Amino acid sequence: MKKHLLIPTLALSGLALTIVAPPVDAQPRVVEETIEEEMGSEYQSLRLVRVVEGLEQPWAVAFLPGDRMLVSERPGRLQLIESGTVTEVSGLPGDLHARSQGGMLDVVPHPDHEANGWIYMTYSKGTEEATVPALSRARLDGSRLVDVEELFESNEYTSPGRHYGSRILFRPDGTLLMTIGDRGAEPERAQDPADHSGSVVRLNDDGSVPRDNPFVGSDGHAPEVYSYGHRNIQGIVQHPQTGEVWATAHGPRGSDELQLIERGENYGWPDASLGRDYRTQEPWSERRRYEPDFRAPVFEFLPTLAPSGLAVVEGGGFAEQWQGNLLAGGLRAQRILRLVVENQEVVHAEELLLHRIGRIRDVRQGPDGHIYVLTGESDGGLYRMEAVD
Amino acid sequence: MKKHLLIPTLALSGLALTIVAPPVDAQPRVVEETIEEEMGSEYQSLRLVRVVEGLEQPWAVAFLPGDRMLVSERPGRLQLIESGTVTEVSGLPGDLHARSQGGMLDVVPHPDHEANGWIYMTYSKGTEEATVPALSRARLDGSRLVDVEELFESNEYTSPGRHYGSRILFRPDGTLLMTIGDRGAEPERAQDPADHSGSVVRLNDDGSVPRDNPFVGSDGHAPEVYSYGHRNIQGIVQHPQTGEVWATAHGPRGSDELQLIERGENYGWPDASLGRDYRTQEPWSERRRYEPDFRAPVFEFLPTLAPSGLAVVEGGGFAEQWQGNLLAGGLRAQRILRLVVENQEVVHAEELLLHRIGRIRDVRQGPDGHIYVLTGESDGGLYRMEAVD
Repeated sequence: MKKHLLIPTLALSGLALTIVAPPVDAQPRVVEETIEEEMGSEYQSLRLVRVVEGLEQPWAVAFLPGDRMLVSERPGRLQLIESGTVTEVSGLPGDLHARSQGGMLDVVPHPDHEANGWIYMTYSKGTEEATVPALSRARLDGSRLVDVEELFESNEYTSPGRHYGSRILFRPDGTLLMTIGDRGAEPERAQDPADHSGSVVRLNDDGSVPRDNPFVGSDGHAPEVYSYGHRNIQGIVQHPQTGEVWATAHGPRGSDELQLIERGENYGWPDASLGRDYRTQEPWSERRRYEPDFRAPVFEFLPTLAPSGLAVVEGGGFAEQWQGNLLAGGLRAQRILRLVVENQEVVHAEELLLHRIGRIRDVRQGPDGHIYVLTGESDGGLYRMEAVD
Repeated sequence: MKKHLLIPTLALSGLALTIVAPPVDAQPRVVEETIEEEMGSEYQSLRLVRVVEGLEQPWAVAFLPGDRMLVSERPGRLQLIESGTVTEVSGLPGDLHARSQGGMLDVVPHPDHEANGWIYMTYSKGTEEATVPALSRARLDGSRLVDVEELFESNEYTSPGRHYGSRILFRPDGTLLMTIGDRGAEPERAQDPADHSGSVVRLNDDGSVPRDNPFVGSDGHAPEVYSYGHRNIQGIVQHPQTGEVWATAHGPRGSDELQLIERGENYGWPDASLGRDYRTQEPWSERRRYEPDFRAPVFEFLPTLAPSGLAVVEGGGFAEQWQGNLLAGGLRAQRILRLVVENQEVVHAEELLLHRIGRIRDVRQGPDGHIYVLTGESDGGLYRMEAVD
């Protein structure tokens, strides 16, 4: 009898779900609303503008000619922002499979986008059982992706859907770097240079392997690997003055790191780590010293930042003291850290937007010089930080 | 004509000042109000209770037998909290002179207070022109200080009224340490071991110099000096397990430090510093390396903490993972950092009370095991943080 009584209850519950309307603001829309007219910070007053609201877990923002922007939404969408409207882009790679931390991830225009129209994107690809981070490029025809071309996929399908890495950085030599996380289940894969997981890979813009990659021709090494021993890099940028490549990486508890990425280097994960086990607070590894086998992080974020998004300030009307500074977004920390780096040391840090707009997922400087920030909540937003004289 | 017109305006302005009544809550009072029933943190839920409100720039809290507490207020008062009432203590040292960062500062009971009744206090002493940090002890008769006895004053009266240091730490060997800041105008005094400024001094409990002090009998050294090269230590505690003495010190911008205090050591200020000039963001010193001449800080607080108050968690029903952790208060940062220290390294940090109750001036563990926190606003408060099962 009891069993039978459950059936109508479940049916009712299912009915209730279909009746509940989605929140009114679930659809992304351009608002261009000034949140703070003049916000104080060291050396620089800032205006904070909410540009778009109603984004669902936005992951990356890219700038296209004609004031257009693309924003990826992790659950598997790309939104085109143009002339005050938001339009969902069609034609995404058909094998994109969004689960857990995976989905539609980074999106970056080719440095010669104006000439060739290419847009590069990373995403998780596969099935409910197993996925890999993948890289494709495509062109935009109106609001439709065309000429979609897969350039690279990581070399082992795996579960769970975590630690994809997936940030893209184009470099002045015409190559690109793509970060790949350790995939979360078997961290020791980051120490295997034959496994793309836990590495930074370097590719030509057509996906081919540059002949001068550090491990080309080395047995037991994947030729795409540029550096390895990484856990999960979620921000990467090249410094315009020094040419240094900086990355922010998630560690186990208490060891989020700023790393200087150099060719052929091993960053130690998981054999060396400053971090702690999330559950017990016990050290992750017996080994806290990176030298002489591994490259040590340049800076450890204490307390936890949970970094995502990394930009360098260049021009934009920002104060002289800000020029060349890194801006590192933080999810858990809900702030941006302005990091003053000199001689490969962090010498000063300032918190920006502390608990002001939520979890920070991406930070980029736009072609207009302003700093664009994505917040990662289910009702996420795109914000603009402008220098105020 | 214009000059004459200014006179009545100024007079009116003066009148207005006398008419404005002090805020109703300027008088401190016990409220015992639960602010948060159960506040999340790593490994430990916390209850937050506002115990006293209406304190004016409280600086230190001390615990006396019979659930009594003393709170110093920087402008020159001592408040006795007893049976739900707050009573101003009379009989403070007559030469106390409050200006700028000076006034009534630390207050600590003698370890054998129950037997001898002594209460130790630091304060700034002098005139409008020049002051020194001083140490006295007294007994409490009702709400009146009696038997007031000056034990020590720093050896150079100076202006401006900044960087007094003035934290007191009793050690198990019967001596006490008192921190003395560099006094703000001539930082190089911290490198002169004949000058108490910029040092930690070590005294017997009667103010005499322990014969085993590191510089006793050394020419050009004040015999009270235990360590030097300090800028402004505002938190000091001895770890109950390791016996290590930990201190938190204000540096120039971006270089607030956690220091391990050891006898006879020079901590480098101002010849070596990780800090930056407040105005220009330029390095304070050419020298960022402490070794081999100086003791390097164990940890640099980035971003700025502006530390004040330092406690060690011992018992109190707090989670095992919290035992032996340091709790470092922050004024500018408006938070407490829980620091996990192992082998003289900070291996993990968690933010507590972030922007929740304002600028943190003091953090102590009470004899009841709870953590007591003073906030330093003009309308300051005393808070209690309790472990919740």
